[in-house]
Amino acid sequence: MPKAIVLLSGGLDSAVTLALSVSHGNETVALSFRYGQRHARELDSAKDIAKHYDTEHFIVDIDLSAFRSSLIGNTGKVEKDRENIGGDIPPTYVPARNIIMMSIAAGLCESEGADRIYIGANSVDYSGYPDCREEFFMSFGEMLRKGTKAGAEGHPIRIETPILNMSKSEIIGLGKRMNVPMHLTWSCYSGGKKACGRCDSCILRLKGFRDAGYRDEAEYE
Amino acid sequence: MPKAIVLLSGGLDSAVTLALSVSHGNETVALSFRYGQRHARELDSAKDIAKHYDTEHFIVDIDLSAFRSSLIGNTGKVEKDRENIGGDIPPTYVPARNIIMMSIAAGLCESEGADRIYIGANSVDYSGYPDCREEFFMSFGEMLRKGTKAGAEGHPIRIETPILNMSKSEIIGLGKRMNVPMHLTWSCYSGGKKACGRCDSCILRLKGFRDAGYRDEAEYE
Repeated sequence: MPKAIVLLSGGLDSAVTLALSVSHGNETVALSFRYGQRHARELDSAKDIAKHYDTEHFIVDIDLSAFRSSLIGNTGKVEKDRENIGGDIPPTYVPARNIIMMSIAAGLCESEGADRIYIGANSVDYSGYPDCREEFFMSFGEMLRKGTKAGAEGHPIRIETPILNMSKSEIIGLGKRMNVPMHLTWSCYSGGKKACGRCDSCILRLKGFRDAGYRDEAEYE
Repeated sequence: MPKAIVLLSGGLDSAVTLALSVSHGNETVALSFRYGQRHARELDSAKDIAKHYDTEHFIVDIDLSAFRSSLIGNTGKVEKDRENIGGDIPPTYVPARNIIMMSIAAGLCESEGADRIYIGANSVDYSGYPDCREEFFMSFGEMLRKGTKAGAEGHPIRIETPILNMSKSEIIGLGKRMNVPMHLTWSCYSGGKKACGRCDSCILRLKGFRDAGYRDEAEYE
């Protein structure tokens, strides 16, 4: 039975990706990150989704506050930075984020004996992001072929991007057909008990549900 | 003035690599990791070396204990794992370690506006490690060219491995000629006030100094 590490943020895309890994017949392990998000709401969703699918779930702590502090020119004053973040820089912004997360997933592959990484990256909604393009993922796979024990031994870690070229409504339609518990996923930038329904991410999600012809059962304010 | 991120463990190789970055005319920023090492001695050395060269120094916290716990079959019981580690698995072992550290360095490049990463990897002492081979570093650079903003904009992040093909005695000879404060570096696996002089790492270091014709001014028990 192949074994997959699935990057699980707690959002809609990664939940559908996890469901796809399970449906592809992989023994599936979820991997999430606690990297100084302003709120833990998305991570709570990740836990609920992993529980729903009864998959093992690793949460890795990585403190990248130093990065953000350097971005806003306040190096070394991390506590203060946290208050000052706002405006142009979203609190979850991390440069080279997919690269870092996939690298850690590769490490977990090696220690768990998994042979593939699933990531719910999407080149439609994030067309401007170099780390969401197909040629990047191919290049990352090639790098792992050269730089890991598994690759050196002739069975390289595969990178699976099953929703890369789907629109939001296609992802939602697929998720609904697969009975993904969409109400457990979290897309909102805020960390309230209910989604705000007004931020860019909520708007993109609600439009996706409308276009797909489904009702979003997540709770909104 | 070019700007470089140098991976600085606090060991001899990374100290020489940092000195090379400075001598190459780069504005140099050091990057170290706190990833659950059994002792902080090496990190203290990293701080001393960064201070000696008056470089900015970022220390990133990353908790990869989940990896190790899975390695020794004790998933989820991290506290217990820490006690159980020993024998075959060195406390500092992290699968895909260079990949993870270089990925985080790439993120720091993006946020700091640096255009190159220096890493003191060595393919002579670590010939069996796929992530210490030249073809891996080339492939990693190619991946960054595809997956980062800098790469997409036509000025990709460069990977510099200046001591990759040197023997330990060559590295030591070079370091001595460059006045690297070798006495500040830490190679010993133990975390005492003085190096043990008996572990594999101490033995490799002491042989290197002998072969290079220098006295190691680090303190030994």
